[in-house]
Amino acid sequence: MTTTKTALILSAHAADFVWRCGGAIALHAAMGYRVTVVCLSFGERGESAKLWKNPGMTLEVVKAARRAEAEAAAKALGVHDLICLDLGDYPLHLSQDDKMRLVDIIRDVQPSFMMSHSAFDPYNTDHMYTTQVALEARMIAQAWGHNPGQKVLGAPQLYLFEPHQTEQMGWKPDVFLDITPVWDQKRAAIECMEGQEHLWAFYTRVAQNRANHFQRNSGGQSGGRQALYAEGFQSMFPRTVDEL
Amino acid sequence: MTTTKTALILSAHAADFVWRCGGAIALHAAMGYRVTVVCLSFGERGESAKLWKNPGMTLEVVKAARRAEAEAAAKALGVHDLICLDLGDYPLHLSQDDKMRLVDIIRDVQPSFMMSHSAFDPYNTDHMYTTQVALEARMIAQAWGHNPGQKVLGAPQLYLFEPHQTEQMGWKPDVFLDITPVWDQKRAAIECMEGQEHLWAFYTRVAQNRANHFQRNSGGQSGGRQALYAEGFQSMFPRTVDEL
Amino acid sequence: MTTTKTALILSAHAADFVWRCGGAIALHAAMGYRVTVVCLSFGERGESAKLWKNPGMTLEVVKAARRAEAEAAAKALGVHDLICLDLGDYPLHLSQDDKMRLVDIIRDVQPSFMMSHSAFDPYNTDHMYTTQVALEARMIAQAWGHNPGQKVLGAPQLYLFEPHQTEQMGWKPDVFLDITPVWDQKRAAIECMEGQEHLWAFYTRVAQNRANHFQRNSGGQSGGRQALYAEGFQSMFPRTVDEL
Amino acid sequence: MTTTKTALILSAHAADFVWRCGGAIALHAAMGYRVTVVCLSFGERGESAKLWKNPGMTLEVVKAARRAEAEAAAKALGVHDLICLDLGDYPLHLSQDDKMRLVDIIRDVQPSFMMSHSAFDPYNTDHMYTTQVALEARMIAQAWGHNPGQKVLGAPQLYLFEPHQTEQMGWKPDVFLDITPVWDQKRAAIECMEGQEHLWAFYTRVAQNRANHFQRNSGGQSGGRQALYAEGFQSMFPRTVDEL
Amino acid sequence: MTTTKTALILSAHAADFVWRCGGAIALHAAMGYRVTVVCLSFGERGESAKLWKNPGMTLEVVKAARRAEAEAAAKALGVHDLICLDLGDYPLHLSQDDKMRLVDIIRDVQPSFMMSHSAFDPYNTDHMYTTQVALEARMIAQAWGHNPGQKVLGAPQLYLFEPHQTEQMGWKPDVFLDITPVWDQKRAAIECMEGQEHLWAFYTRVAQNRANHFQRNSGGQSGGRQALYAEGFQSMFPRTVDEL
Amino acid sequence: MTTTKTALILSAHAADFVWRCGGAIALHAAMGYRVTVVCLSFGERGESAKLWKNPGMTLEVVKAARRAEAEAAAKALGVHDLICLDLGDYPLHLSQDDKMRLVDIIRDVQPSFMMSHSAFDPYNTDHMYTTQVALEARMIAQAWGHNPGQKVLGAPQLYLFEPHQTEQMGWKPDVFLDITPVWDQKRAAIECMEGQEHLWAFYTRVAQNRANHFQRNSGGQSGGRQALYAEGFQSMFPRTVDEL
Repeated sequence: MTTTKTALILSAHAADFVWRCGGAIALHAAMGYRVTVVCLSFGERGESAKLWKNPGMTLEVVKAARRAEAEAAAKALGVHDLICLDLGDYPLHLSQDDKMRLVDIIRDVQPSFMMSHSAFDPYNTDHMYTTQVALEARMIAQAWGHNPGQKVLGAPQLYLFEPHQTEQMGWKPDVFLDITPVWDQKRAAIECMEGQEHLWAFYTRVAQNRANHFQRNSGGQSGGRQALYAEGFQSMFPRTVDEL
Repeated sequence: MTTTKTALILSAHAADFVWRCGGAIALHAAMGYRVTVVCLSFGERGESAKLWKNPGMTLEVVKAARRAEAEAAAKALGVHDLICLDLGDYPLHLSQDDKMRLVDIIRDVQPSFMMSHSAFDPYNTDHMYTTQVALEARMIAQAWGHNPGQKVLGAPQLYLFEPHQTEQMGWKPDVFLDITPVWDQKRAAIECMEGQEHLWAFYTRVAQNRANHFQRNSGGQSGGRQALYAEGFQSMFPRTVDEL
Repeated sequence: MTTTKTALILSAHAADFVWRCGGAIALHAAMGYRVTVVCLSFGERGESAKLWKNPGMTLEVVKAARRAEAEAAAKALGVHDLICLDLGDYPLHLSQDDKMRLVDIIRDVQPSFMMSHSAFDPYNTDHMYTTQVALEARMIAQAWGHNPGQKVLGAPQLYLFEPHQTEQMGWKPDVFLDITPVWDQKRAAIECMEGQEHLWAFYTRVAQNRANHFQRNSGGQSGGRQALYAEGFQSMFPRTVDEL
Repeated sequence: MTTTKTALILSAHAADFVWRCGGAIALHAAMGYRVTVVCLSFGERGESAKLWKNPGMTLEVVKAARRAEAEAAAKALGVHDLICLDLGDYPLHLSQDDKMRLVDIIRDVQPSFMMSHSAFDPYNTDHMYTTQVALEARMIAQAWGHNPGQKVLGAPQLYLFEPHQTEQMGWKPDVFLDITPVWDQKRAAIECMEGQEHLWAFYTRVAQNRANHFQRNSGGQSGGRQALYAEGFQSMFPRTVDEL
Repeated sequence: MTTTKTALILSAHAADFVWRCGGAIALHAAMGYRVTVVCLSFGERGESAKLWKNPGMTLEVVKAARRAEAEAAAKALGVHDLICLDLGDYPLHLSQDDKMRLVDIIRDVQPSFMMSHSAFDPYNTDHMYTTQVALEARMIAQAWGHNPGQKVLGAPQLYLFEPHQTEQMGWKPDVFLDITPVWDQKRAAIECMEGQEHLWAFYTRVAQNRANHFQRNSGGQSGGRQALYAEGFQSMFPRTVDEL
Repeated sequence: MTTTKTALILSAHAADFVWRCGGAIALHAAMGYRVTVVCLSFGERGESAKLWKNPGMTLEVVKAARRAEAEAAAKALGVHDLICLDLGDYPLHLSQDDKMRLVDIIRDVQPSFMMSHSAFDPYNTDHMYTTQVALEARMIAQAWGHNPGQKVLGAPQLYLFEPHQTEQMGWKPDVFLDITPVWDQKRAAIECMEGQEHLWAFYTRVAQNRANHFQRNSGGQSGGRQALYAEGFQSMFPRTVDEL
């Protein structure tokens, strides 16, 4: 009987899992978690501007390039399984069958925790739609009457990872994770995103400033625990504990 | 060098710490925490209706009765130190000196975590005032320039314990604590509150229903972990972790 | 010309109307209201875990069992008309035709007030979807150009009944209803829900604690009006009155 | 034994009770309520610009003029008792003694309902301070241990009346009151406010537009009940009822 | 190379653009903006009660009448292009093709700013759906991979114009626009809405009271700038400036 | 007659104006604004940890060091007038006289706009207290009856500058200011804060990432306007404009 812990990341576009939770992936992978990343689309239309500026570019070429980047990044992070559903972006839409495929994945992975986008995002409706779908699929996976005989899902936390302009999304982190030990891996994964080089420095700075928040909340002026890089997450559900 | 963990509970009136976090106190005391409870007042004016209905009742008699109840409850829960500041209630008000006394207590205890009331309470302004004071005192205790030479406070979590009508207070628990192992102690402490017998059954039901929430959030229909009694808390600050 | 008052309850799954507003149904039925309950689904997939744990269980058997429970409960509560739309659950989805059927029911009933689920529910997207549909159907039923010639709908209140974990849903009751006179009926209806016996005690405790809230808000320490069982509701729309 | 109903209005400045709830006062007075209005200040500094533009104006003259206006308006509305506490404005501040005087008034009136300003007002801190004090005084008046022997207060609703720029205050009305029958009285009272003539038309328009809201919420396109003038209020506490 | 500024208004029903932003349209048209108005529907079912009360009325007649009104109003306001998509109302629904048509319009107009309804509206789900679609279409229009070769959209502000009952929609204006110079045009456009004569006076009063808010926020008691008529808007996105 | 524009910054502690709005100060000073900075305290107790770690440190030495830093920073930024009120910190408290002194300053400056801290800050009650005082003082300065004869204040915007952990404060910027032209000055001012060297890099990264937000909101993928450094602000009041 295996006791391997697992995690499931839902990424609307191919690069989101890198910027927003690459550290969490690498860190948990290093701890022995099997981390599955589902990219619902490649971000081929909406998040590949640099590629489209090349003359004669086609959708297939863009998708292939984005897939290659995602695979390289996943490898750098130690992702156990990268699943690219290729459902299209801008807008992203899941049919009932697509949703059921997602439910199958959730049941197969039986994640200890899940991750998705912020609940609100006026800049990017694909992002908030993904989280809406995540909640719906989580609910279906919990139902005894859905594909009876399969193992039903427990009650994994759904963490909302950091969106691009946090305050505009109403996103509020309630947990900071020290990703210092795996920073090199996250940076390597970031550098796989060749089409979005302007964001490499941006998200490096985000990680550095979140490390300051980590230190503040772990001790403030009394010292706290130093961290050089961190990520923040917002929990959708309450925790259950035996000690505060 | 001691490594004893500590906790500090700020209770506006003498009975609040029993109804709202008696289980957390007993549980952590059983784990070896030294738990200090500060009762800012006895609730002598506003929460002692039954006593005042006796003819000839005086403020001193009410306060003595409430103190005795609080002491008995604290003993039942394994409280390390019960400090009754006797600052008056309805309304509760702290002078600058009172606040500094509270800061001294915080620095002396060096709590691993603190607890106080909900941030909003239109029924009971003493409650929200207590949390306002808790934040102010926590801040002062963190300042290197306040009583230089004393050990400054780190960044303990401030948990807001459950108010009486949760939805009216905008209180939302993000953590549920299983208090089944210490329920007998909490019930014993509750029964020390002779003047508020109408609340015994109420808060027993709260604990039972929170146990249902504990179970749901620890596993839902897949099982989860059974709990018979639980308490819920809202965190004021983000957590810092090495594993999600 | 009839002056019978009417009410319309929209229940995502077969049992919701029992736990969440069984008292309101029985009380208004006793006052002469004709109460129509629409169950959009039987909760056959998602809220029938106990049945599914029996070997060889089928969807039809589960639905039949849930229908029988709903009918028994409706009878116990004095429901005038129980309409089971059998639209499927986990996820629940209404086609345009389904919505129009719902609009027909609303126009037929001409409810004095309507009831539905909380506006937000991260645990159960069927619930929040139902309220979204309720608002849409209410709007259509008010339109003079929808099925011209039919009597258009007025502006009935939409009450949101109590969800399972109120604080996680952002649900805030603004009215408490004393259901003491009909408690035996609600309890009888609850006991019709054989598949969810673990919730019988839970919702009995909810009713008892809401009675405490009823008493507080009707008088507090000065006495108030005693109630043994109550239900809480959140109003979606403002009231119009001639006296405050 | 008298069964006269009563109401208590807390007005930060002399004119607030006229613009914001003059209709409610006149309507309930006409129904036999004894309505007490407490003006905490005359608005002598902050809401008497027109008077101050006269050369040689003094604080005493302004206060006398504002008192006269308030008295005339109170008479026009049928106010039972107008109490001008003359506590100063811009800023308004109540000492502990001032608050106790307010508690005495509340206990004396034993209001069926209370009224005060919106809970938030970045333009006018006197307004939000008044509501803060209203909640505190209401709580003290409910305490059996405050002036034992006096009749304690029940649990009257606290209605927040309409502020000047509703959306900026986060004020949301949940009840509309038809004041058509007493509009002439409200208009007469409004015209007593000679120093703020620019607001006469403004608040007449507010009453007319609120009447539109009254009609919408009482029936919408199906008709509803016509009203020519209305006022809106936000309830601080839940209601307790026997029929929805 | 043209430097003409442009604006794009999304109106769920034919009359919305008149009541809610007619002044903004006329004012910007007068300044040389080319203003395009897209009416997603005519409001033929849900906002044409007066017409439907005529015996024998048909959908086509209603739509023609509403179209004529919209055209007359657009002319009065100086609208550059009125596009009636005739997508149906109560409920309004856009297919994927409909959305792409809207994206085409957005790309064609290249608006300096966009306008739509409030983000929430429990009375009218068509309204909030329109804003949801506006955000989605804006996002698609920004994507380099959508119809490569077309000019992509920049980042125009999305202003939410004033809904009918502002507080119930959670709508909060952050900018007031003085429409005094074009009031006659807005009033003329309003009077084109023959089917909704009961709203003429209502929205005239709204404009007058918003002018009071304009004056307050431009100077308050110190004077401010007088305005006789104004409109309020809520911005969805932050502004970018070189001077505060 | 002078037409010089002015601005007034309220800084709870000596360094806040540097981190949070140093760019806005330098930029507006360069445009000819006369910018007055009021430091309510030196942050001598709570924000001078490094100094206090020196043996034998005294309050006077800390205050002198902090004053010197503030003066140097103000000079670097082109501040017209730096006013250090020396009111004490952790906690900061203003007496009635202190508030009146602040009102005098406001009236003297007659600011085109004001700046203060976020409205909520659970880490630092001095910060939110400062904004509360700012609103109160602004209101008093607007009153014709306060020191009659003085020029009353208009209705300047109150911008809330960026707090340290934005999401925990509920702070949401609605305007981004390009401070690239004055970055060298802001960096120079930052480097005056010798006691908080750990924040130099932090706030440099904040400015860089806010520049990314500036660019996004000024054009997004279509280009937008490049900025290397920016600051964000939240407006307390609506704007009044003649063009959107």
